[in-house]
Amino acid sequence: MRMYDLILKKKKGEELTTEEIRYMVSGFTDGTIPDYQMSAMTMAICFRGMSRKETVDLTLAMRDSGDVLDLTGIRGVKVDKHSTGGVGDKTSLALTPIVAALGVPVAKMSGRGLGHTGGTIDKLECFPGFTTGISEEMFLENVNRIGIAIAGQTANLAPADKKLYALRDVTGTVDQLSLIASSIMSKKLASGSDAIVLDVKTGNGAFMKKMEDAVALAEAMVSIGTMAGKKTYAVITDMDQPLGLAVGNSLEVMEALELLKGGGPEDFKQVVFALGSLMLMAAGRAADEAEAVSLMEGVIADGSALRKFAEFIEAQGGDPAYVYDVSLLPLAADTVPVIAEADGYVHRILAEEIGTACMALGGGRETKESAIDLSVGILLKKKNGDAVRAGETLAVIYGNDAAKEEAARRKILNAYQIGWEKREKGPVIHRYIR
Amino acid sequence: MRMYDLILKKKKGEELTTEEIRYMVSGFTDGTIPDYQMSAMTMAICFRGMSRKETVDLTLAMRDSGDVLDLTGIRGVKVDKHSTGGVGDKTSLALTPIVAALGVPVAKMSGRGLGHTGGTIDKLECFPGFTTGISEEMFLENVNRIGIAIAGQTANLAPADKKLYALRDVTGTVDQLSLIASSIMSKKLASGSDAIVLDVKTGNGAFMKKMEDAVALAEAMVSIGTMAGKKTYAVITDMDQPLGLAVGNSLEVMEALELLKGGGPEDFKQVVFALGSLMLMAAGRAADEAEAVSLMEGVIADGSALRKFAEFIEAQGGDPAYVYDVSLLPLAADTVPVIAEADGYVHRILAEEIGTACMALGGGRETKESAIDLSVGILLKKKNGDAVRAGETLAVIYGNDAAKEEAARRKILNAYQIGWEKREKGPVIHRYIR
Repeated sequence: MRMYDLILKKKKGEELTTEEIRYMVSGFTDGTIPDYQMSAMTMAICFRGMSRKETVDLTLAMRDSGDVLDLTGIRGVKVDKHSTGGVGDKTSLALTPIVAALGVPVAKMSGRGLGHTGGTIDKLECFPGFTTGISEEMFLENVNRIGIAIAGQTANLAPADKKLYALRDVTGTVDQLSLIASSIMSKKLASGSDAIVLDVKTGNGAFMKKMEDAVALAEAMVSIGTMAGKKTYAVITDMDQPLGLAVGNSLEVMEALELLKGGGPEDFKQVVFALGSLMLMAAGRAADEAEAVSLMEGVIADGSALRKFAEFIEAQGGDPAYVYDVSLLPLAADTVPVIAEADGYVHRILAEEIGTACMALGGGRETKESAIDLSVGILLKKKNGDAVRAGETLAVIYGNDAAKEEAARRKILNAYQIGWEKREKGPVIHRYIR
Repeated sequence: MRMYDLILKKKKGEELTTEEIRYMVSGFTDGTIPDYQMSAMTMAICFRGMSRKETVDLTLAMRDSGDVLDLTGIRGVKVDKHSTGGVGDKTSLALTPIVAALGVPVAKMSGRGLGHTGGTIDKLECFPGFTTGISEEMFLENVNRIGIAIAGQTANLAPADKKLYALRDVTGTVDQLSLIASSIMSKKLASGSDAIVLDVKTGNGAFMKKMEDAVALAEAMVSIGTMAGKKTYAVITDMDQPLGLAVGNSLEVMEALELLKGGGPEDFKQVVFALGSLMLMAAGRAADEAEAVSLMEGVIADGSALRKFAEFIEAQGGDPAYVYDVSLLPLAADTVPVIAEADGYVHRILAEEIGTACMALGGGRETKESAIDLSVGILLKKKNGDAVRAGETLAVIYGNDAAKEEAARRKILNAYQIGWEKREKGPVIHRYIR
């Protein structure tokens, strides 16, 4: 078998066999197939696409390129959750203690933020001492004991995907549906959970700007997961504005804690409850959404979800006192209001602009090596559909540097698209795919 | 400017600017743009194509990536000739002394054979002592003195093309029209002639199997040459069977000499006269084809074309005695007839099969490093349209190894497609493009 022939085959639009895809992935991973052949292949895939079968084959080959975690030592149905990434997406922080409090173990691999979207690990590091650099034994033990563990991605989980993504990133081949779906799912399948719940975001701040692309991606991932023998559900959620009101690491932790204490913004709550319902149903803990929601409301009301979160923080070296007293969490010294310049209604909030405004404040990474300021962020005061008067505060900036705050202020003002006509709030939950 | 953005631009089907193409070619040549980005780009070009303007820009950027020969020291209008390659194509050997005898200087860069097609340099090496490794001064001096010089391609002629071709060759992106046209023309333009005459072959033994592809390639090259300020003509010639009767280095030299002595197969003569007419017209030596043909017939009849060839061989170190006495040329010891197994008419002779049969005898290169046997080859006795009886000789093999001869015999028998119905000989000259 020669990679050259596989490139020609795909270029002609023919379907690659399971053996051919395995050959390609293993050769690329061990370096016998050079980058320049793989990049020609991925470009051909961008034009010719991949069948569902090819996509599954690619996913499984990438899953098998490294370690596949064995979570059989954990009791119960392990459910993993993945989000395609958005601005203000602190869902995992609230969701995991809720389902863990209901007896569904969460054994999660998380990433750091890059670009305009944040990462769960960065947010958790607002708790002094907290670490995701825990051993595999501790990871398993913590899940069995308290029901939650979150680890940073180990180097040897789907190394083929890591190498392929790095190549796609510099050759303009990131946006192909099958390549995106197989990239996400290869890591999720290697993480060893029994079921997978996917939050696919759509809208101006999402990777998938168009609804039909988000649906196609969700369908592809659900079918890959299902064909790989895992219960897999997806929900399409809105990212036509940031989720909730808080953007920025520490502010988002506060908002997640607010939800666990029975409060929190409505849209954020809807996303947490939608994903939580799917997780509880996947685990067989709830028969339907109504039962799932009532269970979740229960563990919020009786404080057990919040206590579960504190237990989790403590188990990974963090100070649980911060969970109960959010005034301990880092918060930037300056508060700068962003003032509306005219009357109207909020039509859209360009989430990506809000994300880059937060990055400009020092709260996000430009490169993998950047250090970030956990204390900065943006608190939105107006969201889509809200009426606005000139002089009212649209958002409040939390910053530590006047020049950066001014740059962020202009970005935020620009992100708010305000029009004359009254506009209804759009739905937060667009569609379920299972 | 970033190569990444140029890949995305081309992927979307947009036109690259002159500056962008120059940036890409120079970065790729000096290694600042890595192979894996360039191969993604060429694959995107395979799907999106290139406009005529982009193709010209690419050609000129590749031309300018190395030396551009200065032939202004040569008197007269220098006309270069290029063939896209075929089996039994000894055209240059006969053509160059004919036009040189008519006062049109030929300053030519030639290549060696690779795969099933032969190369002019290999054929010329049948004359003991002959070399194409001559200095630039001697090259220029010989053209001025006797009217012909043929040199091997210097390393620094269009190095971008050399590097790009090597990459295309291993990434399945060889067959794109604009990339083919710019590859050929960048080298031709760097060779410094005033006019270019192109022999674009079509048929089963040609790189361009289909007539429409050959026409498209010829049109692209003629327009590139014209836009680069060179008089450029093309002729589409037939390669649905080998050209002439001889295939193999020494046998082809003999056939070329036969033509220069007033004989030779009709189809071969037609190709030489068609290309020669274009060269004489491009040089302003003849007003039309009728005048050109009559001039060419004159220098053949009076022996001056043959003497010119002998002068040329001598000037580059070869023994001119071989020109007048072809029995001195190397010829393999064994002659093995290929016998027809049934009656009928020759419908096609798969030229590529004849070429690989000659290669199997030791007369062609599998890799650039292979040594070749100049004395082996195949003499065709039947050509397209000829009537054949079972037991008649289709071709004669000249070989030095019984096992190789048997392998060649089977290949040749397989190459002859013989049918019941009478079939007319097809045309040799399909179309002129100027």
